[in-house]
Amino acid sequence: MTLYLLPNALHPDSSPSMWCPEALTLLVNRLDGIIGESEKPMRQYLKNCGFQRPIASIPQRLLNEHTSAEDLAALVDEIKAGGVWGYVTDAGLPCIADPGSLLVRKVRAAGALVQAFPGASSITQALILSGCTGQKFTFHGYPPKDQHEFQLFLKEIEQKGYTQLFIERPYANIRCIEQLRSVLKPSTWLTVVLDIGTAQEEVVHLPISYWKERDLAPLNNRPAVFVIG
Amino acid sequence: MTLYLLPNALHPDSSPSMWCPEALTLLVNRLDGIIGESEKPMRQYLKNCGFQRPIASIPQRLLNEHTSAEDLAALVDEIKAGGVWGYVTDAGLPCIADPGSLLVRKVRAAGALVQAFPGASSITQALILSGCTGQKFTFHGYPPKDQHEFQLFLKEIEQKGYTQLFIERPYANIRCIEQLRSVLKPSTWLTVVLDIGTAQEEVVHLPISYWKERDLAPLNNRPAVFVIG
Repeated sequence: MTLYLLPNALHPDSSPSMWCPEALTLLVNRLDGIIGESEKPMRQYLKNCGFQRPIASIPQRLLNEHTSAEDLAALVDEIKAGGVWGYVTDAGLPCIADPGSLLVRKVRAAGALVQAFPGASSITQALILSGCTGQKFTFHGYPPKDQHEFQLFLKEIEQKGYTQLFIERPYANIRCIEQLRSVLKPSTWLTVVLDIGTAQEEVVHLPISYWKERDLAPLNNRPAVFVIG
Repeated sequence: MTLYLLPNALHPDSSPSMWCPEALTLLVNRLDGIIGESEKPMRQYLKNCGFQRPIASIPQRLLNEHTSAEDLAALVDEIKAGGVWGYVTDAGLPCIADPGSLLVRKVRAAGALVQAFPGASSITQALILSGCTGQKFTFHGYPPKDQHEFQLFLKEIEQKGYTQLFIERPYANIRCIEQLRSVLKPSTWLTVVLDIGTAQEEVVHLPISYWKERDLAPLNNRPAVFVIG
């Protein structure tokens, strides 16, 4: 009984030739079951990886923010029963900014082997593209939703003196940058990395004083990672 | 003029079928020059990626902790002069726990495009394998060398309440874990992820009280990432 943490593309439009090496195709074809964040992207993942059997022939289970403790326990029992299972999310690596780490702990505690196939994460891609130091960094996931708490969060991370990363839902990009412009010091550098892993990938790396002059409309609704440092 | 940040294997023994998808082979064959951390691994990288021309035919430059400011400026001038350049380190992604971020900033400031090919980092692989939360985490690079400062560092990160990662030179693994055992609370969980990306990959995930009983000899001299959380 083995659970494989499997990498997905950074963006649904990425060609498998960008992220699916031969050994991943071989591994996916050996799976006895797969766990995904949502149904359609999970089936698309199997196709993208060159899954040879009929898609409907492999057990497919869901794990996401709606999964109850009972459903998770049933999932762990199914993995314990044997075979090689894969776990994949809709983009990048599983277990980062999603509830997957709980599955890993429970599966390992149940005596199964947990392995990870190497793959990319939009967080590290944003980090290296930003030009900010990668010697020390914090990833904060999604920042607080409440406006006042978000402002306190920004003031706190601005003081840290090393690279700070967070993500936001694409529809909230403009509102988020407007807050960043109003709270951060004019000399603080803000890097926004957009559409990572696609032909439209773009890095905007400017001090806040320059961000204030910037038209934000072209940044609307594009997956983004925010880097301060 | 473009600088591509290129992913390498997580471990020199990893088969290219684990980490080199088709599009990376195509990209490496388009390079007009390559920058690496050290000479032999850089040549091996070109071979592993399926480089078709004679290895000696492509300009090869070094960037590492011995690179002077003058050498870096010369490198930026060479990239500015045109063509597609690649930058690779000895393992994983460049610009994490190495001086590459300075190259990225200087090349971008000189007007060149910086792009990143998606790839794995041992930090995110260790994070997802650890079962510790990936919703928020800090990577600290190499911890302080001085014993007293290292102990203060450990006490500080133990308080943080979210996932903390650091790396150590493989020859120092045992000395490092002995310190962790003596400084951290018995109930604190320490995960050590060894030989990431190889067939020998191993995850040891235990509270400090259990680590105290553990024979450390099998952990000696193996590349490791340390995770507290």
